Amino acid sequence: MSTSDAAPIALIVHAHPEPRSFSTAQMATAAQALRGAGYRVDVLDLYSDAWDPTLSRDDFPSVEGHFKPQAEQMRAVGNGTLDATVQAHLDRLLAADLLVLSFPMWWFSLPAVLKGWVDRVFVMGAVFGGDHGLFGEAALAGKRAMLLFTTGGSRESFMPGGAFGPMDDFLFHIHRGMLEFVGYRVLDPVVTYGPAHMTEEERAAALEAVRESVTLVAADPRSRDVSLV
Amino acid sequence: MSTSDAAPIALIVHAHPEPRSFSTAQMATAAQALRGAGYRVDVLDLYSDAWDPTLSRDDFPSVEGHFKPQAEQMRAVGNGTLDATVQAHLDRLLAADLLVLSFPMWWFSLPAVLKGWVDRVFVMGAVFGGDHGLFGEAALAGKRAMLLFTTGGSRESFMPGGAFGPMDDFLFHIHRGMLEFVGYRVLDPVVTYGPAHMTEEERAAALEAVRESVTLVAADPRSRDVSLV
Repeated sequence: MSTSDAAPIALIVHAHPEPRSFSTAQMATAAQALRGAGYRVDVLDLYSDAWDPTLSRDDFPSVEGHFKPQAEQMRAVGNGTLDATVQAHLDRLLAADLLVLSFPMWWFSLPAVLKGWVDRVFVMGAVFGGDHGLFGEAALAGKRAMLLFTTGGSRESFMPGGAFGPMDDFLFHIHRGMLEFVGYRVLDPVVTYGPAHMTEEERAAALEAVRESVTLVAADPRSRDVSLV
Repeated sequence: MSTSDAAPIALIVHAHPEPRSFSTAQMATAAQALRGAGYRVDVLDLYSDAWDPTLSRDDFPSVEGHFKPQAEQMRAVGNGTLDATVQAHLDRLLAADLLVLSFPMWWFSLPAVLKGWVDRVFVMGAVFGGDHGLFGEAALAGKRAMLLFTTGGSRESFMPGGAFGPMDDFLFHIHRGMLEFVGYRVLDPVVTYGPAHMTEEERAAALEAVRESVTLVAADPRSRDVSLV
């Protein structure tokens, strides 16, 4: 399928400090697979963009008194005075039909630079709250999101009864608390376990598996745009 | 009980951008309660210290090639070349008998600035891995940790069947994935639900409840230092 202005948009937000990492190769492979499935792909690379993850009063220069982050987000949305960088990222988020968060799992969660992208860009009043509600009434309701990540530990360590604990339980705060909260339907995550321990051959096979998984997940049969495949 | 050099140390790592916030008042109340219980209290205020949460090759200036964060942490621990700021925070972490993470819950997790404190200071080779193992074999085994936080939503929304989901499920990635992973025994969290909606009287009562809870939790009867109370 060729892409066009009518093609759906996938926004990949990527957070790995090393361009030669497996995580970055995995992101590039996913981008290619999504293009092959008919998406226009927009990539936000937080490390190369030197994204500042700290939500602070610096985003709201007119605040002089007691700083209440969510109240200031609501006010800035109402006044059209969101920080220019945040507004640009928010526009790209709202334009996307599919959001892909791409990262190495650090401490069973997002790297701080990516957590801080959520903190600053999932703006109250624009993405949820205010004229929008939560979950099915939030601004991104009807759109889809997925996680694309690597782990240090093995697949077995993330099984029920494994050394760490069930992967689904670790992901709950992201799937439920960040993605479903703003309206997304959450697709199955695409995970590569322990790429640091792989041979070159295993790495190539793992990237091929990523390509197949992303193609399948993006064409999720419950999706509204199943016709893409 | 008076404090002395032999008194146990509580390290509070605090992450709220506003000194006049309820969250910051809650932290100060907890610090006072811990002093009252015989602790020496060390407070790390990440916003006022302008802590940089992004783990990057900047922490490892000698790296020229492919940057592998954990490998570089291990090497820096071995060579004694950890970044000076990270080393100073690590020293304070290792000296503490009780770790308290103090924050407003943002996106059902830690604010990015605090997540990035974990990313940079829970150093592989010094806190876990290398000469240390994981969980019961990690460097902080036998010590205790607790969360002290505020929420936007109500207590009911975090109950099983509530609008958001069970609080314990949201905290799993922190309790299991960050604190138990490095050896801590995790104490009950101290949570104030929805302080933004409180009157002055309710706020004062909530701080008093925090004082009582922190005193109780810090004196956890399963603790080795129950004699503190």
